[in-house]
Amino acid sequence: MIVGKIVGNVWATRKEDSLKGLKMMIVQRLDPCTDEKHESFVAVDYIGAGIGELVLVSRGSAANKALPIPNAPVDATIIGIIDQMEVPEN
Amino acid sequence: MIVGKIVGNVWATRKEDSLKGLKMMIVQRLDPCTDEKHESFVAVDYIGAGIGELVLVSRGSAANKALPIPNAPVDATIIGIIDQMEVPEN
Amino acid sequence: MIVGKIVGNVWATRKEDSLKGLKMMIVQRLDPCTDEKHESFVAVDYIGAGIGELVLVSRGSAANKALPIPNAPVDATIIGIIDQMEVPEN
Amino acid sequence: MIVGKIVGNVWATRKEDSLKGLKMMIVQRLDPCTDEKHESFVAVDYIGAGIGELVLVSRGSAANKALPIPNAPVDATIIGIIDQMEVPEN
Amino acid sequence: MIVGKIVGNVWATRKEDSLKGLKMMIVQRLDPCTDEKHESFVAVDYIGAGIGELVLVSRGSAANKALPIPNAPVDATIIGIIDQMEVPEN
Repeated sequence: MIVGKIVGNVWATRKEDSLKGLKMMIVQRLDPCTDEKHESFVAVDYIGAGIGELVLVSRGSAANKALPIPNAPVDATIIGIIDQMEVPEN
Repeated sequence: MIVGKIVGNVWATRKEDSLKGLKMMIVQRLDPCTDEKHESFVAVDYIGAGIGELVLVSRGSAANKALPIPNAPVDATIIGIIDQMEVPEN
Repeated sequence: MIVGKIVGNVWATRKEDSLKGLKMMIVQRLDPCTDEKHESFVAVDYIGAGIGELVLVSRGSAANKALPIPNAPVDATIIGIIDQMEVPEN
Repeated sequence: MIVGKIVGNVWATRKEDSLKGLKMMIVQRLDPCTDEKHESFVAVDYIGAGIGELVLVSRGSAANKALPIPNAPVDATIIGIIDQMEVPEN
Repeated sequence: MIVGKIVGNVWATRKEDSLKGLKMMIVQRLDPCTDEKHESFVAVDYIGAGIGELVLVSRGSAANKALPIPNAPVDATIIGIIDQMEVPEN
């Protein structure tokens, strides 16, 4: 999983049918060791995360397993909202 | 998913049988936070997107789930046409 | 899918059994927008592509779907020979 | 698989149900040839690894196969604790 | 598939059960066009490759298909030992 910050929303009226009703968020990847900002991408949010929150994102075939829609063409899903990170050793 | 702009078309007469009839578009990845242009690649379009439009692209095993052809060897599909993006926090 | 140019051949006598008889080509990834050359890798060719040709390559779990061997450990397959690319907007 | 060093912990109270009880660690990728430090990410630990240890991490669809939960949306799992690496030729 | 050179061994006594008995090698990716050295990673060897040999590595879900253990959490497997590469056009 990667760590990211939710930085925005994206809307698409014309989309693949199984995506109807899914909330799409723009996430910017952050490195938990260096705090560096990396690339941004779009992830489905199914746990009620909001802008500014740090989240865990699962990508690839795992992303779909966090959704109740077995065949949605989703390759990135927010699977947790981060309360705390501790990086004592770096 | 990633955000991209459709920048062109690609034609291939000799191709794997299950791809016959699928429209292939050249997409350039864009970073929704920084507007930076990244690498370009080819995605199948099944929702009628056109050149110049911003789209959502799903990659990997999810890409095939957006198509009615269960075993097409497709690793990138356009799954939505973006109406609006809002990135208030960056 | 990505765009690449076939630049060479690779031979391996000792290999996983299901790969016997499959033709392996060295492909260099090209960016269809910028013409930049990227990394090279090895893809299975099942449609009769030759050195110097521009091809479409599918990677990941999709790669195997283009082959008649359901369980070959193949992660990149040439799925089309490109006739033409048009990138009007860039 | 990649080689990484466990550098921290991450806590998420609100998370996808199947992740409850799984320990999440922050791992920094290390190159076994050059010792260079690469990006950090989050992996599930199911074998009892601790901070400071060098580990093997499996990513993608393989990550889930190391867990007793068949449908957890996990894309990175620690699958071994490294005792020794030998890189005679470099 | 990617081309790599076997540069070392890795040992892990505590590891996921299905990995017992599998030989793990450190592989450094090489670009067959430019001979550039890229990142190193760990791949399972099931065909008897040795240090210094050039090999073909399959990654992702394909990696597991080269092993007789259907559910091993393996994301990279050596699938061939390279005898010769020819890159006439570059």
